[in-house]
Amino acid sequence: MKAIKVGLLGIGTVGGGTFQVLRRNQDEIRGRAGRAIEIAMVADLDVERARAIVGDACPVVTDARQVIANPEIDIVVELIGGYGVAKTLVLEAIAAGKHVVTANKALLAVHGTEIFAAAHAKGVMVAFEAAVAGGIPIIKALREGLTANRIEWIAGIINGTTNFILSEMRSKGLDFATVLKEAQRLGYAEADPTFDIEGVDAAHKATIMSAIAFGIPVQFDKAHVEGITQLQAADIKYAEQLGYRIKLLGIARRRDTGVELRVHPTLIPAHRLIANVEGAMNAVVVQGDAVGTTLYYGKGAGAEPTASAVVADLVDITRLATADPEHRVPHLAFRPDAMSDLPILPMEQVHSAYYLRLRVADEAGVLSRITTILAEHDISIDAVLQRESAEGERQTDLIILTHDTQERRVNQALAQMQGLPSVLAPIVRLRKEELA
Amino acid sequence: MKAIKVGLLGIGTVGGGTFQVLRRNQDEIRGRAGRAIEIAMVADLDVERARAIVGDACPVVTDARQVIANPEIDIVVELIGGYGVAKTLVLEAIAAGKHVVTANKALLAVHGTEIFAAAHAKGVMVAFEAAVAGGIPIIKALREGLTANRIEWIAGIINGTTNFILSEMRSKGLDFATVLKEAQRLGYAEADPTFDIEGVDAAHKATIMSAIAFGIPVQFDKAHVEGITQLQAADIKYAEQLGYRIKLLGIARRRDTGVELRVHPTLIPAHRLIANVEGAMNAVVVQGDAVGTTLYYGKGAGAEPTASAVVADLVDITRLATADPEHRVPHLAFRPDAMSDLPILPMEQVHSAYYLRLRVADEAGVLSRITTILAEHDISIDAVLQRESAEGERQTDLIILTHDTQERRVNQALAQMQGLPSVLAPIVRLRKEELA
Repeated sequence: MKAIKVGLLGIGTVGGGTFQVLRRNQDEIRGRAGRAIEIAMVADLDVERARAIVGDACPVVTDARQVIANPEIDIVVELIGGYGVAKTLVLEAIAAGKHVVTANKALLAVHGTEIFAAAHAKGVMVAFEAAVAGGIPIIKALREGLTANRIEWIAGIINGTTNFILSEMRSKGLDFATVLKEAQRLGYAEADPTFDIEGVDAAHKATIMSAIAFGIPVQFDKAHVEGITQLQAADIKYAEQLGYRIKLLGIARRRDTGVELRVHPTLIPAHRLIANVEGAMNAVVVQGDAVGTTLYYGKGAGAEPTASAVVADLVDITRLATADPEHRVPHLAFRPDAMSDLPILPMEQVHSAYYLRLRVADEAGVLSRITTILAEHDISIDAVLQRESAEGERQTDLIILTHDTQERRVNQALAQMQGLPSVLAPIVRLRKEELA
Repeated sequence: MKAIKVGLLGIGTVGGGTFQVLRRNQDEIRGRAGRAIEIAMVADLDVERARAIVGDACPVVTDARQVIANPEIDIVVELIGGYGVAKTLVLEAIAAGKHVVTANKALLAVHGTEIFAAAHAKGVMVAFEAAVAGGIPIIKALREGLTANRIEWIAGIINGTTNFILSEMRSKGLDFATVLKEAQRLGYAEADPTFDIEGVDAAHKATIMSAIAFGIPVQFDKAHVEGITQLQAADIKYAEQLGYRIKLLGIARRRDTGVELRVHPTLIPAHRLIANVEGAMNAVVVQGDAVGTTLYYGKGAGAEPTASAVVADLVDITRLATADPEHRVPHLAFRPDAMSDLPILPMEQVHSAYYLRLRVADEAGVLSRITTILAEHDISIDAVLQRESAEGERQTDLIILTHDTQERRVNQALAQMQGLPSVLAPIVRLRKEELA
């Protein structure tokens, strides 16, 4: 049977990995897919780099539109990244009747609704396994493997850079800035790490997962995004003493009134499997009503892990291309006429447990004043840790873990506590999830 | 669009779960699949039990052949189990042109080749996600999610009963017989637990995974099967002191000369994620050349977790039924003309590291004699643990961890050591895998 012809837009790290994997494992892949999958044309502004990778295997051009216009090409793989030209090219590829594979989470989290609608209207597929958690087949698990389930929540370590930094901060007791420099030296963090450390990348991925889990449109602009730049070594240590690890989690949870969509540092019980995911690895926990808790773990980035996902999408398209378009896996897991209008909840309405660290004067009555405020806001306390003051010290750290409550209440209680004369510094507030 | 009609053969635990999930989540499932999926007929010898579950929702019959002969039925779900009548009925359903979904690992591990060939010839699908690791979508991950990869090895905790027993033995320091009784009382082990505790169930599942990972026929008769009935609490304790946990693993590994297919208690480094999978949970680690290490975790049994997999298969069939049959996911991941003839290696040719416990006389020269024998067989030592003898005791436990070597050499060395006068009891030999 005729080979499937693929056009590559951008041949950097992931594009190069895709080229290598398709070539090295071509027999394996043909044996599974039933057809050869060949890269027939590559577009990249850096022709020299591109040529160094592909050799004489296929034409290399600088103009992506030549790939899209090539009538031989069945599938266009977009690996340019970003919201700009990538969006234009993806829409043009769709308009030209090409199936599209993309690893571009930023693009899909922001413009996914428009892109998927265009693809649906044109009868082509846009596949994006590589956009979330690299080589872990989490999109496939959510859209197909768990299709029997009402998904209740998802919580994932979906950014390797921040997980590497948090692992190092904990195991070596170092502060954020020191570890970030080390991560940059080792290549685990980019020269401009903003998207990673501020939680934006994780929020892109959480947004995509929220959409396919609950059948809602992608709504990145409604996500709560909080990174790890403010996280202090002291809180990692206190959390550990209380039996918790701190991870940057992307969380999507269905409530009766809407969907929680949030990225922030989170305390997790240390004995949970996901709390033991260290270094640059990713893991996603999915809670379904029938299946219960499942977890998916692997490399979330890198040339070949990401290529593994890109190629899986190419094979899927090869298969489903011959199926009745009405029977393909819907882009957002649910068919367009079965989408939900559950809103994304504002952060004030989110439910969570909380970790509070207060720097307080070491004097009688402080704990009582603080616990009274919590009680007045109906926030019940799970645990208290008061560090003994060192000799001669007149202030101390007071750590409080709360039970589940509403964020609004905590905000109100915090404002009141912060006004107490015996509270000597800005209160540190982190969220805590049992993931049970 | 017309609903897909399903006939259920057997409505015990999993059948009941499937009925419940399909009913409870029918909107969710229709929204994803694009068609309703309805149970249109149920066959069970226990009509009363069946009727109690399905009520008036559909006809209940005692004769499975009525379901197969029903022209309305698109998909037959076999949940009878075992190699006997289940095999006949599955083949009859295929002959009648029905797609088949089954959770029957024993049937597929032993008769899979014949069944898949019949299905291929008839142009129908036989789906079996529920046959391995319950609700974890591991078949889908292997056949589709990791389709770009040359799979190198798979190692799984794929039997919940034995993992529960091992977890209890370790955490409570109890022996096998005591924990087995507790497991039976709690419903984690069956009245006749032979298939679980002797490793047969895990070997069925490992056999199926070996086939779809490497594109070889199912060859259960060539699997090495070793259960946990001989495992002693002392070895769990010594393993822990050396930084290892003991798990019953199903292992399938590709070597140049063939495939290792084995189930046995295995020491795993305690810090590996899979070493921390406790209780009745399952987890499978898959190593692919592009993706690296991935892990899949969840409930491996139970009504609704297994139903989650059965229903996912129903949706997949609903989708792929309209695709060109040549483009469906091949039963054993590779197309029939792309299967490999790599043989299953005999156990003597398997490579592993080893844990040896010797009960030895506490006298000079013993360690030297034993290490000399290992050296003569070219087995290098990774670690030695010699328990100090208690006062007045004239014998002691000597624990040796070896580096990777061939099983044949270890057998020969063990035979020689066992003949030493200072070796006072049968030597305990366990295998150790770093899973790195």
